[in-house]
Amino acid sequence: MPATVSEKTIGRLSLYRRLLYELRNAGEENLYSHQLAQMAGVTAAQVRRDLMSIGYSGSPTRGYDVRELGESIGRFLDSPTDQGVALVGVGNLGRAIMAFFAGRRPHLRIVAAFDTDPYKVNRVIQGVRCYSLEQMPQVVESEGIQVGILAVPAVAAQSAADTLVRAGVRGLLNFAPVPLRVPPDVYVEDIDMTMSLEKVAYFARQRASQKELQTW
Amino acid sequence: MPATVSEKTIGRLSLYRRLLYELRNAGEENLYSHQLAQMAGVTAAQVRRDLMSIGYSGSPTRGYDVRELGESIGRFLDSPTDQGVALVGVGNLGRAIMAFFAGRRPHLRIVAAFDTDPYKVNRVIQGVRCYSLEQMPQVVESEGIQVGILAVPAVAAQSAADTLVRAGVRGLLNFAPVPLRVPPDVYVEDIDMTMSLEKVAYFARQRASQKELQTW
Repeated sequence: MPATVSEKTIGRLSLYRRLLYELRNAGEENLYSHQLAQMAGVTAAQVRRDLMSIGYSGSPTRGYDVRELGESIGRFLDSPTDQGVALVGVGNLGRAIMAFFAGRRPHLRIVAAFDTDPYKVNRVIQGVRCYSLEQMPQVVESEGIQVGILAVPAVAAQSAADTLVRAGVRGLLNFAPVPLRVPPDVYVEDIDMTMSLEKVAYFARQRASQKELQTW
Repeated sequence: MPATVSEKTIGRLSLYRRLLYELRNAGEENLYSHQLAQMAGVTAAQVRRDLMSIGYSGSPTRGYDVRELGESIGRFLDSPTDQGVALVGVGNLGRAIMAFFAGRRPHLRIVAAFDTDPYKVNRVIQGVRCYSLEQMPQVVESEGIQVGILAVPAVAAQSAADTLVRAGVRGLLNFAPVPLRVPPDVYVEDIDMTMSLEKVAYFARQRASQKELQTW
């Protein structure tokens, strides 16, 4: 297995796996690289390169076996053992994230939540035990958690990230609308849903009004 | 007001507004461009350029008025009239999105939801009426909806996007894990939460195992 696979390749493999899963559920058994490529919006050469990078060689004459290819990608992407995730912030956004990820990946699931609200601490919310922020270092270490999701307000994000990283977390999915400062060996992905919706709304309005002007 | 403001500037303005809102709730009244810049992870010159692009000139000696600046950005970003949003797909993800955006922006809210499931159609879910896909063109047109959120499986995304665009939608926030083909006057933002979490998990594992190797 090659030493390094790029972020973009990992992202595309995640996408291929889900497309293959949907195809399998729809009863498809075989597909060609150009079909997968079209669904994923990339070239067939890109698909073949990505699959080669994880050591996969299909049978090009009949195409790939949908189930087998999906499972091969899964073995590459997923941890062979369970990978627990810590969620910080159990407000509206945190609960939405819990609901979304619940039951999606048995090997990658939220195993502990953290919040400052004393009414949430020590309760089980959507199947996940909620702890105080003070308990974070101890819980993260004892559960061997490597992945954190931040769903806290902007002002609280950096300090939550610092605590997670000190406790051993090496990857953060950051929903808080601020850039995080982390050591170089920590991987961060940012998602800002409000920013995305506000951009879409702004440009939709601009374009709708341009359309009206053209009509006149 | 200038004719064009870039996507990146709109994204940063959305972020500044939310940071200012948090500061205001924390009792702050004034701040300097370099303080806002630090919170947003950009330079002070960038902040001043962005604010100039919406015609805002503060009083640099005492800094900006937190409340006034936040409201000015809001007047630029937000529609003067309500902007309704259509949500397609009321599964786990769609409900999480509804919960997240509920009550956030009175001027920008989900006013109609669409799903194929007959048990959801004609019901009110989280305060939003759910319609069948067949009703989409009529509802989108009669409500004057310009913004759509796609929370459907990959295989259903393109056809839902086509219907929304034909009915007049000019901006799409796409949570489905496929690239959409849309006319050039339609703006699209993609969010793939599963891909982001899988990337974080993969690289967290890689980095944690590198750390272990170094320890030996």
